[in-house]
Amino acid sequence: MTRRAAIIGGGVIGGGWAARFALMGWDVRVFDPDPDAKRKLDEVLSNARRALPGLYDAPLPPEGSLTLVDTMTEAVDGAAWIQESVPERLDLKRKVFQALQSSAPDDAIIGSSTSGFKPSELQGCATIPDRIVVAHPFNPVYLLPVVELVTTDRNAPDLVTRAQAILTSIGMVPLHLPREIDAHVADRLLEAVWREALWLVNDGIATTEQIDEVIRLGFGLRWAQMGLFETYRIAGGEAGMAHFLGQFGPALKWPWTKLMDVPDLTDALIQQISDQSDAQSGHHSIRDLERIRDGNLVAILRGLKQTGQGAGTHLSETDKALTDFKLDPTQPVETANRQIPLDWTDYNGHMTEARYLDAFANATDRFMELIGCDAAYIASGGSFFTAETHIRHLAEVNAGDRIRITTQVLGGAGKKMHLFHTMWLGDTVAATGEHMLLHVSLETRRTAEPLEPVRTRLTEMAEGHAGLPMPDGAGRAIQSS
Amino acid sequence: MTRRAAIIGGGVIGGGWAARFALMGWDVRVFDPDPDAKRKLDEVLSNARRALPGLYDAPLPPEGSLTLVDTMTEAVDGAAWIQESVPERLDLKRKVFQALQSSAPDDAIIGSSTSGFKPSELQGCATIPDRIVVAHPFNPVYLLPVVELVTTDRNAPDLVTRAQAILTSIGMVPLHLPREIDAHVADRLLEAVWREALWLVNDGIATTEQIDEVIRLGFGLRWAQMGLFETYRIAGGEAGMAHFLGQFGPALKWPWTKLMDVPDLTDALIQQISDQSDAQSGHHSIRDLERIRDGNLVAILRGLKQTGQGAGTHLSETDKALTDFKLDPTQPVETANRQIPLDWTDYNGHMTEARYLDAFANATDRFMELIGCDAAYIASGGSFFTAETHIRHLAEVNAGDRIRITTQVLGGAGKKMHLFHTMWLGDTVAATGEHMLLHVSLETRRTAEPLEPVRTRLTEMAEGHAGLPMPDGAGRAIQSS
Repeated sequence: MTRRAAIIGGGVIGGGWAARFALMGWDVRVFDPDPDAKRKLDEVLSNARRALPGLYDAPLPPEGSLTLVDTMTEAVDGAAWIQESVPERLDLKRKVFQALQSSAPDDAIIGSSTSGFKPSELQGCATIPDRIVVAHPFNPVYLLPVVELVTTDRNAPDLVTRAQAILTSIGMVPLHLPREIDAHVADRLLEAVWREALWLVNDGIATTEQIDEVIRLGFGLRWAQMGLFETYRIAGGEAGMAHFLGQFGPALKWPWTKLMDVPDLTDALIQQISDQSDAQSGHHSIRDLERIRDGNLVAILRGLKQTGQGAGTHLSETDKALTDFKLDPTQPVETANRQIPLDWTDYNGHMTEARYLDAFANATDRFMELIGCDAAYIASGGSFFTAETHIRHLAEVNAGDRIRITTQVLGGAGKKMHLFHTMWLGDTVAATGEHMLLHVSLETRRTAEPLEPVRTRLTEMAEGHAGLPMPDGAGRAIQSS
Repeated sequence: MTRRAAIIGGGVIGGGWAARFALMGWDVRVFDPDPDAKRKLDEVLSNARRALPGLYDAPLPPEGSLTLVDTMTEAVDGAAWIQESVPERLDLKRKVFQALQSSAPDDAIIGSSTSGFKPSELQGCATIPDRIVVAHPFNPVYLLPVVELVTTDRNAPDLVTRAQAILTSIGMVPLHLPREIDAHVADRLLEAVWREALWLVNDGIATTEQIDEVIRLGFGLRWAQMGLFETYRIAGGEAGMAHFLGQFGPALKWPWTKLMDVPDLTDALIQQISDQSDAQSGHHSIRDLERIRDGNLVAILRGLKQTGQGAGTHLSETDKALTDFKLDPTQPVETANRQIPLDWTDYNGHMTEARYLDAFANATDRFMELIGCDAAYIASGGSFFTAETHIRHLAEVNAGDRIRITTQVLGGAGKKMHLFHTMWLGDTVAATGEHMLLHVSLETRRTAEPLEPVRTRLTEMAEGHAGLPMPDGAGRAIQSS
């Protein structure tokens, strides 16, 4: 399969798709007749470059090309995935499918970003309906993993499998919905909340800011990691889900369901919401808000990656799929090759002191895996604990910088493992980390000889590195001032 | 004001209140006739101890007492805050207010955790209606900051101010809603989502797990940090909020609003949801799920604390209110006194290697503030950058352990600042951190002499510490193995 994607419509959503494909190594062609399309696309790409690659602890493939082209035919030429993100009008979307169906490659999958239309409606007038699916993403497309993949009986199982594989390969989590429905799943929920929120503002119960606060300081925090049902499962406590439902049931008939009709979006209500939103967020430009949002999302996503839950588990799976280090036992080992994530930097944009040790500790973990001290070995009761660390901070490293770490074994005999990491920023040494580790029994928490295969592999590496020159700064102490 | 709270009803919500008050230094008395109340309360408190204190980088006050008492009268005796969290039945809640009103202290505020009833309904039959307010929290009460404070005209402004101050002092963010409405704000939104979710399961469109996934891998991540309106403000892009609303408006009339009636919670539907929830989460006990949730929430909250957004800003404000270190210039300075947060630990429950440097870097920041290198000084263009770090890891530190860091100045002249941190776990030295910092101009990014008052204060500290013995391990290099 050629890793080439066509993006039809380069707005906020189309641009997000383009950025995600390109950063995951696909060549992307975008068709958008908007004269301002180039600028908008560049802005989305620049935001995405800042935020996405650092989500991963593994090196991403080299960035693909991103080209704005003049015709839809040119865009879809040779594409394995075609994504339509034009405005939410059925006639317009159908026109797009009709225009591109003759030039789309035979095996191309055509995804629509529609939040509202059913795939059968989109397939309606097409000559190749079997290749059109709904692939509904969430803004920002380059950070939020989920995509609703809605299909009909006309889509062959093989095509659905292929669509899932492609979406997974670009770091997304396709949620397959084989039964179509207006607005799929997410926008049904969003629509319901939106309706209630409009009432609350309309009736002067709460401002837009108060509504946002009650969400982001309250249930939004729950939903970011467990969603709705698992949260309520907990609320039910020991009595269980059925008991909880029985209790909650009567509330559905409570008086506030009287407000289920739709408020009129009068000019006055629009003005009221717009004014409140200005008062709440008007001191930030939209670009500012996007960067604030992306910084938060990266922090949340990387937090969940560490707990191994929710969206974080999927990041780790992508890491695994991306990792492919090669080992030459006579040379320093490459133990990291990564972009500095946003949450490793302080308000100055440069990497905070403590994250140097994060980077080195990850490199140590990687080295341990390479000598067989992996999850299975650790589960069997042995591991290395760090006893001593010496870091020299030699150059500033900024958010988005790509660093490499190479690791030299200074000693590896008995219970001791003495490692020297060098952090490279291009050809510059940004920092060095010297670490003395001791092998321990996780049961007794005391030092113990390593078991096989760790003992043999560490010895091999130590012998392989014995001929290398002692790196600059090794064995050094902080000089008294 | 005595820091004494009475909790009426010790279930999931009441227990959460009790734990939050106690961990923030209040003495708490709980009344709950449930024979199992003690065990349940202890379990909530143990979860809360594990998660809450580590949210803060400042030392919390000593934990207050938590006592289960036999009568409501005993519970409310001397209490400044009385919180009612009995089951959601108006007659029951009114009975509680009537029972406690004669023994409640004159200035006690009586909060109700009700998610549905209006404060006027609760005030209805009471002899002291002016002191009853709705204080509706979110589960887990010991972690989620927001509380809906709903009042009526009967509550004097002074009482409302006092209520806000008390809630803020225990780390909460009171959202004051002076216009009462059924179900306040949050549960109106939750109710709407719940209704739609029931339809989706009922109609076989999505399972409970799929609904949770689309939330926690999609819009839940947005809502955890910006809420609804600010998210949509961004979605509107450069054209602004009014333009976005104009576009979104028609969607409110789309066909899916036909589903605004309420699905019947038949036994079959309850069983279906319960079965799906078992399939999704049944391999975890409720206690497991709570701990997973709390770990995620701590990671998210601390991530947002770092970005300085949403719920994170409020944590930092509480830190500031809690911080009160004393300085004796002839002795090592206490620069940290904190509990190890959940997100600093690995799957073994012990502090990960890199977080030792986090702790030391925070201690350095604190020391810098003490010598006048605070936010204002840094904004004026000067700061210290770390050039070299030497850490000795001497004892394991676990999640929830309370550590102290004391800091000795080994040198402070010219551009150099040489610090030695000792991390104490009780009387045991858990780690030491030796750090050489250089004063830099943030404009040129080169070393530069510190300005006043930093120069003088650092000199004073260095002179004050000159008579102290050199700490064990200072000036040490990693020994070649």
